[in-house]
Amino acid sequence: MRALVLSTDGPRVEERPVRALPGEALLRPTVGGVCATDLELIKGYMGFEGVLGHEWVGVVEESGDASLVGQRVVGDINCPCRSCATCLAGHPTHCPHRTVLGIQGRQGAFAEALSLPASNLHRVPDAVSDEAAVFVEPLAAAIEILQQIHIRPTDEVVVLGVGRLGQLCARVLALTGARVRGVSRNPARLELLPSHVGRATLAQTDDDLAAGRRADIVVDCTGNPDGLALATKLVRPRGTLVLKTTTHDLGDASPVPWVIDEITLVGSRCGPFAPALRMLEAGLVDPTPLISAEYALADGMQALKRAAQRDTVKVLLRIS
Amino acid sequence: MRALVLSTDGPRVEERPVRALPGEALLRPTVGGVCATDLELIKGYMGFEGVLGHEWVGVVEESGDASLVGQRVVGDINCPCRSCATCLAGHPTHCPHRTVLGIQGRQGAFAEALSLPASNLHRVPDAVSDEAAVFVEPLAAAIEILQQIHIRPTDEVVVLGVGRLGQLCARVLALTGARVRGVSRNPARLELLPSHVGRATLAQTDDDLAAGRRADIVVDCTGNPDGLALATKLVRPRGTLVLKTTTHDLGDASPVPWVIDEITLVGSRCGPFAPALRMLEAGLVDPTPLISAEYALADGMQALKRAAQRDTVKVLLRIS
Repeated sequence: MRALVLSTDGPRVEERPVRALPGEALLRPTVGGVCATDLELIKGYMGFEGVLGHEWVGVVEESGDASLVGQRVVGDINCPCRSCATCLAGHPTHCPHRTVLGIQGRQGAFAEALSLPASNLHRVPDAVSDEAAVFVEPLAAAIEILQQIHIRPTDEVVVLGVGRLGQLCARVLALTGARVRGVSRNPARLELLPSHVGRATLAQTDDDLAAGRRADIVVDCTGNPDGLALATKLVRPRGTLVLKTTTHDLGDASPVPWVIDEITLVGSRCGPFAPALRMLEAGLVDPTPLISAEYALADGMQALKRAAQRDTVKVLLRIS
Repeated sequence: MRALVLSTDGPRVEERPVRALPGEALLRPTVGGVCATDLELIKGYMGFEGVLGHEWVGVVEESGDASLVGQRVVGDINCPCRSCATCLAGHPTHCPHRTVLGIQGRQGAFAEALSLPASNLHRVPDAVSDEAAVFVEPLAAAIEILQQIHIRPTDEVVVLGVGRLGQLCARVLALTGARVRGVSRNPARLELLPSHVGRATLAQTDDDLAAGRRADIVVDCTGNPDGLALATKLVRPRGTLVLKTTTHDLGDASPVPWVIDEITLVGSRCGPFAPALRMLEAGLVDPTPLISAEYALADGMQALKRAAQRDTVKVLLRIS
């Protein structure tokens, strides 16, 4: 089967067989989404080799649960052991024995077939298109912020960096009634924000700082090492800094203001799929304006190239 | 009046006049305590110049509130404006206009007299000796952790670094019923922990890590840049890391595990004096075994030298 595969020589589209792992479902992806993590994996992050892709929507081809066959589904990317102390304590996405679709120890979704446990699957309501459903995984990651911290309707929230994930975070956080502002160096990205989300350039945040205005909550979605130091400047004493950026380098960040100003930093990763599907079905969040381009799986190399360009938000792969 | 004064030439004992600031109380310190922050100020932290010292107990000499005169007191070190948005939002210790005793914009307590607002003062119960009361400020900083986060009686807590502040943190956190362990490179420091607090060398924490044991809560009291990276290794996924160390350098720390493991980091600084006095009065915490040495104010330079030695925990200054 055709697949977009990462090896030590880099990524390429090739043929390789895919079967369901024992006890798991076999799925036929229809659409995949390229994520910043995919681009990081290509640079060597996590040392991953194999089929790329963890954002997908598709149809169940084979499953021990016959009622699933033929259903349109999305799937949780973390596959925990469900029996260790971490799983039993209610943190399966942190299972130390987990595999992660297209990221760690498990073949990904940019292929004509993939295997996942049936327990990871969520049916996609008819009202949600494939083009929206393919955003469920990153939308769940944005919703994870609401799972972790209490955002009050009176809070001032800054989403720093409004690329792929930041756009979704801004949309989700604005549902709380809080005043949400996206901040970016890139005016084109700011224009993609819905009208009820505020927007500011970096220069405008300098004005805020000069006037002593700082946010209750700042979410670092910059994906770059300078994000954390800037986010620290933008948050008020005793405020909360949510970390969505996974870069090893800390840039100019220093823990001194975190201690002096008693900042709370909250690392945030994968989130719950069910509320993401509810939000899409209810029309509370529309991710489809974020689609910059769509490529066939056979043109996967072009898709990756496009996803890495500065003006691109989301690139989709049409798989079947 | 005699005072231990920091100037650009370094610290020295000298004579200087001290009067109450308008509307404030004049206090006669009896005992002062040397803190790691004092040693950092001498190295240039905060750019402070003037009388050092923020840990003290003393007697009220003059006050607009006549009932205070002659009382034995301790005093909050943060002097907020009480009228800005931060103060009115209930965060006076984070007032952007604050002065801080012996740290920022305000002469400190290592002097035969000092000025503080009467509203900062707390009477010391008779059952609490001067030698215990001088620990109220750092004890309050340890209690601040309980003010900020919920520690469950079933939690595993590691206090990393058991010097001046770490010793107090370990004692306070053990009051929750949680299993608390102090971790240090220095076996002599571990021996100072009370018997109900566990202890481990760094080598023993390696064994824990090899066995997959990680703590629910880790408090970094190392005071050195390597503390944060080590604390990150010792905390479980979705656990909490409390930051008490204010070093600019982050050592080998990286935000990647904070995001992947969804760690919460909580910066923690000054705490409430009233519960600290209650704990001392009730005998719940006894800080006096931490006293390594006592010097007269006239021998302040020797006191600072002794405080900087590796085997020293707390050095007191006998002021009057």
